[in-house]
Amino acid sequence: MDAQTGRRLGVWLIGARGAISTCVAYGLSGLRNGLLEPVGIATSRGPLGELPFVGFDEIVLGGHEVVRGDLSASAGDLVRNGVLSAELVAASAADAAAFDARIRPGALDGPDVGLADLDPEAARLGAAAQGEQIARIQADLEEFRSSHELDRVVVVYVASTESWREEREAWATLASLEEALERDAAELPASSIYACAAFRAGCPFVNFTPNRGSSLPALSELAREAKLPHCGNDGKTGETLLKTALAPMFAARALHVLSWQGYNMLGNRDGEVLSDPIRRESKRRNKDEALRAILSDPSVHTEVGIDYVPSLHDWKTAWDFVHFEGFLGVKMSLQFTWAGSDSALAAPLVIDLIRLADLAAERGEAGEMAHTACYFKSPLAGGTHDFHAQFRELLDYGERVLNGS
Amino acid sequence: MDAQTGRRLGVWLIGARGAISTCVAYGLSGLRNGLLEPVGIATSRGPLGELPFVGFDEIVLGGHEVVRGDLSASAGDLVRNGVLSAELVAASAADAAAFDARIRPGALDGPDVGLADLDPEAARLGAAAQGEQIARIQADLEEFRSSHELDRVVVVYVASTESWREEREAWATLASLEEALERDAAELPASSIYACAAFRAGCPFVNFTPNRGSSLPALSELAREAKLPHCGNDGKTGETLLKTALAPMFAARALHVLSWQGYNMLGNRDGEVLSDPIRRESKRRNKDEALRAILSDPSVHTEVGIDYVPSLHDWKTAWDFVHFEGFLGVKMSLQFTWAGSDSALAAPLVIDLIRLADLAAERGEAGEMAHTACYFKSPLAGGTHDFHAQFRELLDYGERVLNGS
Amino acid sequence: MDAQTGRRLGVWLIGARGAISTCVAYGLSGLRNGLLEPVGIATSRGPLGELPFVGFDEIVLGGHEVVRGDLSASAGDLVRNGVLSAELVAASAADAAAFDARIRPGALDGPDVGLADLDPEAARLGAAAQGEQIARIQADLEEFRSSHELDRVVVVYVASTESWREEREAWATLASLEEALERDAAELPASSIYACAAFRAGCPFVNFTPNRGSSLPALSELAREAKLPHCGNDGKTGETLLKTALAPMFAARALHVLSWQGYNMLGNRDGEVLSDPIRRESKRRNKDEALRAILSDPSVHTEVGIDYVPSLHDWKTAWDFVHFEGFLGVKMSLQFTWAGSDSALAAPLVIDLIRLADLAAERGEAGEMAHTACYFKSPLAGGTHDFHAQFRELLDYGERVLNGS
Amino acid sequence: MDAQTGRRLGVWLIGARGAISTCVAYGLSGLRNGLLEPVGIATSRGPLGELPFVGFDEIVLGGHEVVRGDLSASAGDLVRNGVLSAELVAASAADAAAFDARIRPGALDGPDVGLADLDPEAARLGAAAQGEQIARIQADLEEFRSSHELDRVVVVYVASTESWREEREAWATLASLEEALERDAAELPASSIYACAAFRAGCPFVNFTPNRGSSLPALSELAREAKLPHCGNDGKTGETLLKTALAPMFAARALHVLSWQGYNMLGNRDGEVLSDPIRRESKRRNKDEALRAILSDPSVHTEVGIDYVPSLHDWKTAWDFVHFEGFLGVKMSLQFTWAGSDSALAAPLVIDLIRLADLAAERGEAGEMAHTACYFKSPLAGGTHDFHAQFRELLDYGERVLNGS
Repeated sequence: MDAQTGRRLGVWLIGARGAISTCVAYGLSGLRNGLLEPVGIATSRGPLGELPFVGFDEIVLGGHEVVRGDLSASAGDLVRNGVLSAELVAASAADAAAFDARIRPGALDGPDVGLADLDPEAARLGAAAQGEQIARIQADLEEFRSSHELDRVVVVYVASTESWREEREAWATLASLEEALERDAAELPASSIYACAAFRAGCPFVNFTPNRGSSLPALSELAREAKLPHCGNDGKTGETLLKTALAPMFAARALHVLSWQGYNMLGNRDGEVLSDPIRRESKRRNKDEALRAILSDPSVHTEVGIDYVPSLHDWKTAWDFVHFEGFLGVKMSLQFTWAGSDSALAAPLVIDLIRLADLAAERGEAGEMAHTACYFKSPLAGGTHDFHAQFRELLDYGERVLNGS
Repeated sequence: MDAQTGRRLGVWLIGARGAISTCVAYGLSGLRNGLLEPVGIATSRGPLGELPFVGFDEIVLGGHEVVRGDLSASAGDLVRNGVLSAELVAASAADAAAFDARIRPGALDGPDVGLADLDPEAARLGAAAQGEQIARIQADLEEFRSSHELDRVVVVYVASTESWREEREAWATLASLEEALERDAAELPASSIYACAAFRAGCPFVNFTPNRGSSLPALSELAREAKLPHCGNDGKTGETLLKTALAPMFAARALHVLSWQGYNMLGNRDGEVLSDPIRRESKRRNKDEALRAILSDPSVHTEVGIDYVPSLHDWKTAWDFVHFEGFLGVKMSLQFTWAGSDSALAAPLVIDLIRLADLAAERGEAGEMAHTACYFKSPLAGGTHDFHAQFRELLDYGERVLNGS
Repeated sequence: MDAQTGRRLGVWLIGARGAISTCVAYGLSGLRNGLLEPVGIATSRGPLGELPFVGFDEIVLGGHEVVRGDLSASAGDLVRNGVLSAELVAASAADAAAFDARIRPGALDGPDVGLADLDPEAARLGAAAQGEQIARIQADLEEFRSSHELDRVVVVYVASTESWREEREAWATLASLEEALERDAAELPASSIYACAAFRAGCPFVNFTPNRGSSLPALSELAREAKLPHCGNDGKTGETLLKTALAPMFAARALHVLSWQGYNMLGNRDGEVLSDPIRRESKRRNKDEALRAILSDPSVHTEVGIDYVPSLHDWKTAWDFVHFEGFLGVKMSLQFTWAGSDSALAAPLVIDLIRLADLAAERGEAGEMAHTACYFKSPLAGGTHDFHAQFRELLDYGERVLNGS
Repeated sequence: MDAQTGRRLGVWLIGARGAISTCVAYGLSGLRNGLLEPVGIATSRGPLGELPFVGFDEIVLGGHEVVRGDLSASAGDLVRNGVLSAELVAASAADAAAFDARIRPGALDGPDVGLADLDPEAARLGAAAQGEQIARIQADLEEFRSSHELDRVVVVYVASTESWREEREAWATLASLEEALERDAAELPASSIYACAAFRAGCPFVNFTPNRGSSLPALSELAREAKLPHCGNDGKTGETLLKTALAPMFAARALHVLSWQGYNMLGNRDGEVLSDPIRRESKRRNKDEALRAILSDPSVHTEVGIDYVPSLHDWKTAWDFVHFEGFLGVKMSLQFTWAGSDSALAAPLVIDLIRLADLAAERGEAGEMAHTACYFKSPLAGGTHDFHAQFRELLDYGERVLNGS
């Protein structure tokens, strides 16, 4: 039997008609109506399953989107590509329509213009001063909370990878950021505008993308001040998950990894966006560091390629080649091919993080949620990249919660 | 700088001219003469590297063998197949010859007859009553210890996989075993004859094979009585290592593994022996259970094939296909190919286990060495099969040793 | 624009509700109603596309089946497994129902009993004397032809792999077969009963399975006497296709293939049937010989494994490992993984063969259709296994037809 | 028994101490002294083996090199990386030394400067006017022929990939080239300087690299005028060989290839050179066109990556992913991993081409050797890229030679 807390939790998805949000929405509906098992949802299984998480039917979805269209079109795409079943989509039509009606135009960041089907209203909103954008988003969040009588709203960023920008001085402290916003000189990326608005509206923030989000020192300060939990960056869904699960084995066995080449192919919107080198930069940065850290070897030769292969749609396919030296100087190899639906891998992690953020807020925890490191390529709170050690930290957290400590 | 204890440690290898022993012998020589780095030797690295292990130049090798030939022929084979370098073999010739001179004929077990080049003396010895065989082996071990002024002798079983036999009643207790030996009705497999002789001679015992070795209840009792540490069974070198490193990731992510097919190919003597279905049985039993345990799912469809492919020689090549279900009922897959030199993977584990067994004996530990579980497919002391959890137990043991507890 | 001959061609499918037949039926419907392109149908493309083949809308389907159920249930299974789209199934419902109504109970062979859901009527028919079975099938075929005013009926065998049986003396000549049938001592496998009935009814016969079908000398004689074309055995859909496309490259480059290991996994009814070792035998025999022939090397080490992995359903997944020696004695490797829908690969070949058999009959060709060798693992007319050479023969045949020779 | 013609054939290797030349030299020595079988040498096997090719012991090697060092150092590298065996190198020491003594400094092209260990003499020679360089090379070739009493000298270009340069107007005709050379304004790449010198010295020319070599219209004219055969460009050794052997299968089966992604990794000098994007350009151009041509589909999504992975040395490892659509719109995939020694794959092709060029010259054939297309990624004479069709053309040529036509 699913968890029940008596709370009503709002979840505000940025990128609300994207493939991940679509899978979250239809997935939650399927969990509620019994068409789906909670496969992939770690918070429903084993010892974590005993924590007082919000139930699937206690969640109300809303969100922002910059692309035109409706949720059923996104769902149709996912049916054609074997991610959603036609039965689930049919059975969840009413839930989906209700969610769709709660989606509002987001604010489009200038450098991210260029993709098809953009909502002109989003472009108009994105042209406003950043302070105004924040205020408007904050108002949307507050309106969502009050009109649906929600006990809390968690904001989840699942929009596209944004263009890489260098760190600005104004982002260093909350004071400098606020001062810069007043002059409209903050130059925040879109993800950080949303994080700022979330904190001002009293909402925990989850950043599932490689974008900066709440990782700016100024926003980290704001979160602590507002006593709000937040986590990110960049969901660890596929190839990096495997890397950080496998590399500890090489380290434990004292094997010498010489080269680790990784080639990723994907054909969804994320892939299309990443075929733009400036955006790819945000992604690659997060992928490169984990191996060196786990192997304690800055000299290991690694490469992470990301190629846009349209015919694959949502089916991310990655090939990794690990060349390593064993005893006696013998060179050996491991290679693996991972073929998974990017969105179906991401959606349950998003659901886990929603529940974990809500629980953390309920418990009065503030700042970076260090126990969620196993969900991210670049965890905000740092620590090891070793997936198994990260997961143990999550289990330890769960135990502390159960023991009331 | 390598460890130094001032002890002289004898290591008695059963299967002394096999590929693993050959790699251990040339490898230790290369470590001593500086031609090799301790790659693959976990006891030389990180926190484990600080434990008071015996140094590489404090080890003296001897052993039993049932096949005719000399060590340099085994080495030549490994050079031709790219495992040993010609330089190392040349530089280690004197060490190898000295070891070779200390190898004595072993006792050949009846059901294992059939391979080429068997030493007729081994067949003769194997035809004696099992009690006599044990006594002769014990005498060999004691003679080795005294004539080389060794502080201790560790016995390591690295011979071929033996024919599977059902458990006998006489193996249940030490008393019943001794009584049966007197009647020459114990029907011990060869590996257990050696384990028994080792314990009687006061030697720790390491079983690197899937054979029964010291796992019989009667021998476990004998080890505790003689206050000797022992460990086994079946070195976790390749495909199973990977499985037990990867499966915990699927469990942690609550992904539903539907099928896990594993195909192993190898062309060395071990492969030849395993092409005999009766012997393969010993091996497959150990490979099948780990996955079900880690995934907590007795219904997962698994298969482990082992095929003899002579052209591969020592290069074990394994392909695994993991079919799993994620959120939304989506089926995804992971496949990997592992290509490694079986002996170069095994040898450093054997060296680790020698050092760990010696340290345990030095510390007065008796019985199953539970902290060595990460080295075995079927650890004697049981516990989890999760490689990362097993390795953490080894690190914890190391910490306890350093803290003097 | 699709071909048009003005003929009406009946196609009688043995195994009419199996996955291949289901794909043929829905596929032809989709081609007619414009939902599908003729991808995978070589007779619609390039120079072959210019031959006077029967059009997709000139084909009328009927058939025999021994398993209960209806076509829409088979189709539902294929939708759930991502082979048929829900749209195609909906759009083709009327066509499918009409075909389903023309399916009659087949005759079940004794040794093949054991699978679930068998039609008791099929068991009853299979218990009759073989001569009677042949007469009944012949009557069904003739009734089909006359009641649908068909110009010709091609019989296609796409039922499950049957149990292997040794060749009987009675099969050597048509006279001895007829004599044995009279005594009910012919012991024909089911596939040959159908072939015999087809020829007696004046129908060309296509055997897409590894079963004996029309390959018995007696039936070959009958076909020549009846002036009917026939072809088989065992559709070359996946791994063997790849093998026979790749092996010629190794031969041309004078590379020395040492070992070629092939592991096939499948989870459909064919896989379930093949998990029975007696039936697997029929399959493996056909898979083993092609490599030796192409490489002109009887000593090459090959193995072909077939494992039943239910979670894969129709998605046959094969891994092949090719170990080869190049110049200087250097050992190298090629490995490939093929993941394809078995039925979606087979169905267009079946459609090609229907058209080719009809054309051959129209042209008065009798006996083994040697030009169809590229479609089979074990071509009736023998010749090379080199796929490229086989395909060239098909192109040459096409040219001869066009040139009126 | 090996062929014997009574001729003495000189072979002049440009890049004489590179890995390919080293393998050619030791390989020919091993073939002569019986340590090696002619594995990988198509001209020694099957029907081609009956052509009147020059024997292995009738070949005398010489060459140019721009990098310092000696052949035994190159050989040592290849021993350490498992390409040459220590036995072969020892047994061929005298042959190798004799060849080494016949190697002269080549002319280094300006844009190619930058690699370590360059011979300063080569830099000096490369700074001379191109006309002078050609004259000096021509003189070296003539001196080689006369001083070793050779019946013919074949020039083979196996140096590194050179920087890509746009086509110059002066290359369009022999007249314009000669005029430009006089003004030292020809701007020929190094490979074309050698081709020009070869033709002027009356030598057939083989270009095994993606460099321009003899493909300039002016040089093609010169070859015809001088009645000399020549061939190139870019040896088809590994991944492209596989592609052009496999793609025809997809075309024959009317399967729709959606995407073909190829990732190549290599760690030898060629890989190092190709990590320079300007040089990589020469290589990628040749790799991209074959697929589109064979599949008759300009829209197929293809990518060819080449990454420098130093730990692999000579072991080129390529992973290809083929995504294709079959009947019913079902998407399927084939992936393969090729792991081969680049030089051991190239060397026997070079030996084949030497013999074929010599035979063509002996028969008085002039111009592009169209029958050698199966050896090249970008055959000079054009035609199909289908490997099997190309090889058939070679067999047809062989038949014509044997039939005296």
